[in-house]
Amino acid sequence: MLDKFLRYALFLCLFIGFTGIAQAEMTREEYAIKFRRSSYTALGWYYGYLHRMVKGITPYDQALFQRDAERVALLSKLPKDGFIAGTEVGDTKAKPEIWTKPALFKEDNDKLENESAKLAELAKGGDFEVIKAQFSTLQKTCKTCHDDFVKRKSE
Amino acid sequence: MLDKFLRYALFLCLFIGFTGIAQAEMTREEYAIKFRRSSYTALGWYYGYLHRMVKGITPYDQALFQRDAERVALLSKLPKDGFIAGTEVGDTKAKPEIWTKPALFKEDNDKLENESAKLAELAKGGDFEVIKAQFSTLQKTCKTCHDDFVKRKSE
Repeated sequence: MLDKFLRYALFLCLFIGFTGIAQAEMTREEYAIKFRRSSYTALGWYYGYLHRMVKGITPYDQALFQRDAERVALLSKLPKDGFIAGTEVGDTKAKPEIWTKPALFKEDNDKLENESAKLAELAKGGDFEVIKAQFSTLQKTCKTCHDDFVKRKSE
Repeated sequence: MLDKFLRYALFLCLFIGFTGIAQAEMTREEYAIKFRRSSYTALGWYYGYLHRMVKGITPYDQALFQRDAERVALLSKLPKDGFIAGTEVGDTKAKPEIWTKPALFKEDNDKLENESAKLAELAKGGDFEVIKAQFSTLQKTCKTCHDDFVKRKSE
């Protein structure tokens, strides 16, 4: 009986040890904040590729632009999963308005998803002037949401 | 002439200020490390949802499992973009073997992409026993790559 218990305890320790390594020192809330910041970082990385092509810093490559616009569109759908209860405070630049004005936050977030999806769709067509115009719309969408909901360093 | 120069300088400062906020304090290499770690974090987040369904911690929901398996499959394609030259050192748990054994790293990374894609494909079918078996294969793939290429805390 004791032997059985010890075996179970050992198994449990090993299981927790193995599956919990990454999150061992984090609460669920801290992990959610880390996740949403990570998904914005990944989004920003691919947005940067698009930005450099639009600005002419790197040459326009239709296939690459399309691939990365699709990645931005997919990544745009992720961050909202990280705004779970209890994540208003912590290692975050999120303004309290995210929770006090949820309808406006949803509106800004929906715009991010929709304008990104539209860019990915237009990217397939390959008309760079049309693409640049839509990129500009997306850029404004980012700026609006940052103004509304992301703390600046001085805040 | 001076006036024109000043206007240009002001414009340049504003442009750099606006576009460079996120990366202002980071080198390209630091940003690439941050990006690849972020994409692994986002991958792990959705992997966690799948893991909890497979283990019976949360009930199996075919639509949600499929959606998150697709996200894992897409996210699995991202981290490799962050292993650019000069990122062997810095805020990273990457072992030097990533650069000294590139063929093996590619093999492990390809497996991650392929087994994730296979899981996403099988998730559409909805046969939970088949899905669980493939999840187990993916889990082993993660473990192999971690053993080969990710430093433990004690290292």
